[in-house]
Amino acid sequence: MSSHPASGNASLAALRAPFPASRRTYTEGTQPCVRVPVREIQLSTGECISVDDTTGAYGDPAVPIDLQRGLPALRTDWIAARSSAIPDAPRPAAHGGDALQRPPRRLHAGQTQLALARRGIVTPEMEWAALRERGSSHPRAEVTPEFVRGEIAAGRAILPVSVNHPEAEPMLIGRSFRVKVNANIGTSALGSGIEEEVEKLLWALRWGADTVMDLSTGKHIHATRDWILRNSPVPIGTVPLYQALENAGGVAEQLTWEVFRDTLIEQAHQGVDYFTIHAGLRLPFVPLTAQRITGIVSRGGAIMAGWCVAHHEESFLYTHFDEICELLAAYDIAISLGDGLRPGCTADANDEAQMAELRTLGELAERAWAHGVQVMIEGPGHVPLHLIEENMRAEERHCHHAPFYTLGPLVTDIAAGHDHIASAIGAAMIAWQGSAMLCYVTPKEHLGLPDKDDVRAGLTAYRIAAHAADLAKGLPGSRARDDAMSRARFEFRWRDQFALALDPDTAQRFHDATLPKEAAKSAHFCSMCGPRFCSMRISQQVRDFAAARGISPEDALHAGMAEKSAQFAAEGSQLYIPLHAETKENAQ
Amino acid sequence: MSSHPASGNASLAALRAPFPASRRTYTEGTQPCVRVPVREIQLSTGECISVDDTTGAYGDPAVPIDLQRGLPALRTDWIAARSSAIPDAPRPAAHGGDALQRPPRRLHAGQTQLALARRGIVTPEMEWAALRERGSSHPRAEVTPEFVRGEIAAGRAILPVSVNHPEAEPMLIGRSFRVKVNANIGTSALGSGIEEEVEKLLWALRWGADTVMDLSTGKHIHATRDWILRNSPVPIGTVPLYQALENAGGVAEQLTWEVFRDTLIEQAHQGVDYFTIHAGLRLPFVPLTAQRITGIVSRGGAIMAGWCVAHHEESFLYTHFDEICELLAAYDIAISLGDGLRPGCTADANDEAQMAELRTLGELAERAWAHGVQVMIEGPGHVPLHLIEENMRAEERHCHHAPFYTLGPLVTDIAAGHDHIASAIGAAMIAWQGSAMLCYVTPKEHLGLPDKDDVRAGLTAYRIAAHAADLAKGLPGSRARDDAMSRARFEFRWRDQFALALDPDTAQRFHDATLPKEAAKSAHFCSMCGPRFCSMRISQQVRDFAAARGISPEDALHAGMAEKSAQFAAEGSQLYIPLHAETKENAQ
Repeated sequence: MSSHPASGNASLAALRAPFPASRRTYTEGTQPCVRVPVREIQLSTGECISVDDTTGAYGDPAVPIDLQRGLPALRTDWIAARSSAIPDAPRPAAHGGDALQRPPRRLHAGQTQLALARRGIVTPEMEWAALRERGSSHPRAEVTPEFVRGEIAAGRAILPVSVNHPEAEPMLIGRSFRVKVNANIGTSALGSGIEEEVEKLLWALRWGADTVMDLSTGKHIHATRDWILRNSPVPIGTVPLYQALENAGGVAEQLTWEVFRDTLIEQAHQGVDYFTIHAGLRLPFVPLTAQRITGIVSRGGAIMAGWCVAHHEESFLYTHFDEICELLAAYDIAISLGDGLRPGCTADANDEAQMAELRTLGELAERAWAHGVQVMIEGPGHVPLHLIEENMRAEERHCHHAPFYTLGPLVTDIAAGHDHIASAIGAAMIAWQGSAMLCYVTPKEHLGLPDKDDVRAGLTAYRIAAHAADLAKGLPGSRARDDAMSRARFEFRWRDQFALALDPDTAQRFHDATLPKEAAKSAHFCSMCGPRFCSMRISQQVRDFAAARGISPEDALHAGMAEKSAQFAAEGSQLYIPLHAETKENAQ
Repeated sequence: MSSHPASGNASLAALRAPFPASRRTYTEGTQPCVRVPVREIQLSTGECISVDDTTGAYGDPAVPIDLQRGLPALRTDWIAARSSAIPDAPRPAAHGGDALQRPPRRLHAGQTQLALARRGIVTPEMEWAALRERGSSHPRAEVTPEFVRGEIAAGRAILPVSVNHPEAEPMLIGRSFRVKVNANIGTSALGSGIEEEVEKLLWALRWGADTVMDLSTGKHIHATRDWILRNSPVPIGTVPLYQALENAGGVAEQLTWEVFRDTLIEQAHQGVDYFTIHAGLRLPFVPLTAQRITGIVSRGGAIMAGWCVAHHEESFLYTHFDEICELLAAYDIAISLGDGLRPGCTADANDEAQMAELRTLGELAERAWAHGVQVMIEGPGHVPLHLIEENMRAEERHCHHAPFYTLGPLVTDIAAGHDHIASAIGAAMIAWQGSAMLCYVTPKEHLGLPDKDDVRAGLTAYRIAAHAADLAKGLPGSRARDDAMSRARFEFRWRDQFALALDPDTAQRFHDATLPKEAAKSAHFCSMCGPRFCSMRISQQVRDFAAARGISPEDALHAGMAEKSAQFAAEGSQLYIPLHAETKENAQ
């Protein structure tokens, strides 16, 4: 074992610690081994709110975890039935666990989730993913396995778990489902190592990443990916061009189709679940960027533009697209069609370069579907608020409703240091309009490499944006947690509020900063108005006043005013919070 | 001098330190003493971006500042011409500076900005405010003083600077102008003192508050306000009901019109610029809240609902509304019609309670206008994304296009600890739809009292939201700073990027965390891709390649492919960043 990520244990401990008042349960399916993790938030009222749980085996205290061995390969049996081992494939040297003993596999023909869905087959993965989407206390009756199958067959959703990532738990990316969030991690030439990236993976799982992209460049790119894959219960995406460039000596002109293809095979054998491939950036589109303020900002896009200009040839990703698809179909790797010409500033948004590429992505989506390959479409970038809806509509029109996977967008360019906020605004908007997955942006965007704090800040901002979109789309069940939180607020159930928050730690820490004592957790006031006067309390008293008299609040006000007024005045002190010894103690 | 806020000096030093590459200049008007502060950001290219500057005298290194004496009373002469002193008014005992020597004043009849605007008079305040709105490098040609006068006369904008706050610099709140941001500060029964609040005021000015509301409750409410007013160059708002409640012994039933009126007069004499008054919460609307999840969450709303229910009488704020307006007209205090029935959770948004009150606010706006009182309308609260536009349209329809002043709205209820983000999403949306001023929400919302860090975090999130809305509304000039930032990014002018950022400190700190050395400030790469490969750099090279040959990028690609390809390949290494000694040094 060359480099054991021992320091991953810090994040590991955090990841394995349950959130307050939460416990891991499972929803069992009808097919064998379909056992979907659910986080149950247990409230002091006895009520229970179930939420999706992306932490896999880490979230189950009964499962032993060993980062060197990797996670349990829960999809092994399903995969075995559809695939054959490739016994002579070279094995990676970087990882010493069980996974190493497992040779990579190839699917038999016509066995991708898309191909199966089209033939009317509901796979165990589809049933699993359907149960996951129903994992809320107000189940979405319509999210049946058959509904999921139909969405995948129509290309409106993808289920990106590859044949060589049996540790991954099935999930869906599609506009009919909960909006998902991707977290980017990865080493770069300037810093970060394998241990740090495994830490970030675990940390990203803690804060709710639905998928993780490993964007490593520089050294140890293969080994880093191996560690990430073997320890990830969520789908892993990559941009294979980054490694292909390393393999070509870092010189874009020296890239060849063969180098790229070999990289795809290497990563396919490792088990990457989806590949970002910038095949829509064609030679004729490069000049369209010349008048832009920020030209080409996608790294993959810039590499391919450099290659196209150097060779004065059409992109090999475009000319070899069918071969790419054949290869991906053999491993059920989804393709995320990269937007190499995404705008790098609000001024460049929705320009002809972007739209020309988007139309090409639509053409490529149809070609990929013909090969049975699942497809999503990547989107901007930087887009001012008023152009976001137009962007989404263009994607639907040109790309035939393939799931849109958007980076932000950032709605202003001047928020450096806070671009997780500037982009969460755009992300919420575009997700409401239909984007299926949001690629997070951290506070370090444009400035530096994200550390663990940045990963957490980015994910938190994006979970807020994604959930806001789910609410606005009216997804049944999406309101349950909000409404439970609102009731807990109204009733001053502080511990329930912390438990229901997306970030319970911060919520409790902020509360305790003003009211640190234990008794304040059950105090019927909050620090904003103090103990003597509280609007929520008065609302409750107004309501109680009506209820105690067995009359509706309407009646209480419109009938018998004089009599009731006298009564109420006599009990007037009940309108305000008695200064109990307990609350006095906390009023500092 | 009872309590000198000496510790205010920490924030004071921060406030007085210029932002990087920035200097204070002034734009002179045609009327006497119209001299509008502007912050000029000087870029390394020689370009200069002018941005609005809310720091008043603090931002001018040539002006001595003494918190005990207060700011220069710059509007004294203009006010003198329209008003008379009230020599026998009681003087506050809490403040020892020059301002103490100045008796409060009352306007002569018909001298409010609204009354003057209607008579076709362009006041110096209007000219000042117009110049402020033009204070960008792409002047809005149409924002003339006459245009400003017209907007005020029509009630579509307010210029909230009262007769007794001569230190305040004129500014506009209206949908034709830049979206403004308000920061709430204020002592509460549980903590915080005068010194801390003055610190927060100065800190809020540093981070761009356009107005500040002093929501103090508890002790020293008068003295705190005095300190804040005498040291604030931005308009100050209050909720007079909070102090009236203190004056009524903290018991809502014991509130009377007389106690409330006396509070208004006291605060009018001190110089408050706008009052939030919850006069639209009428007795018949209270029962409409009984079925809500969170009832009444506005503190002012809850106080008045408590009063109405206790007395079974119509709200004295509603029945005495004309007297309130007469009083406000005498000091040119704007009225911010409070939304006592704003929704406290997304489930309660846009319900009949909220709409009934909103219609009443529209009726009251017309009554206030009849008295020459400037009006804005307060709005929610908690609203899911898909109901925000409906909210804005309802305000316009019912309130006759009076400026909308919205708190958030929060687009989900489960973001406790990060509600500045959850609400910045809603704030950007509603401001794009037309809201004129955004009341910030800090990360401590729902949990505790905001400290200085929270004030900064809230303001930063809201400046992002407000600016995103300005961009989306297409306000001429709003793009200049973004485009300058984008050009600086493309050209790797790091220092220019820091200077142009809304928060230069954080931008530089984050950059330096990855690339701390001085030379990295001019390095032609960023830490995301490292020195060896950079998309921006490649874009530039693609562009340079075309330009060097005297041909358009289009031609470079479509004509003479073979010859140019050979040329380009020979110069291939130029596509990538040479690893100069300098950059190597920084590649750690």
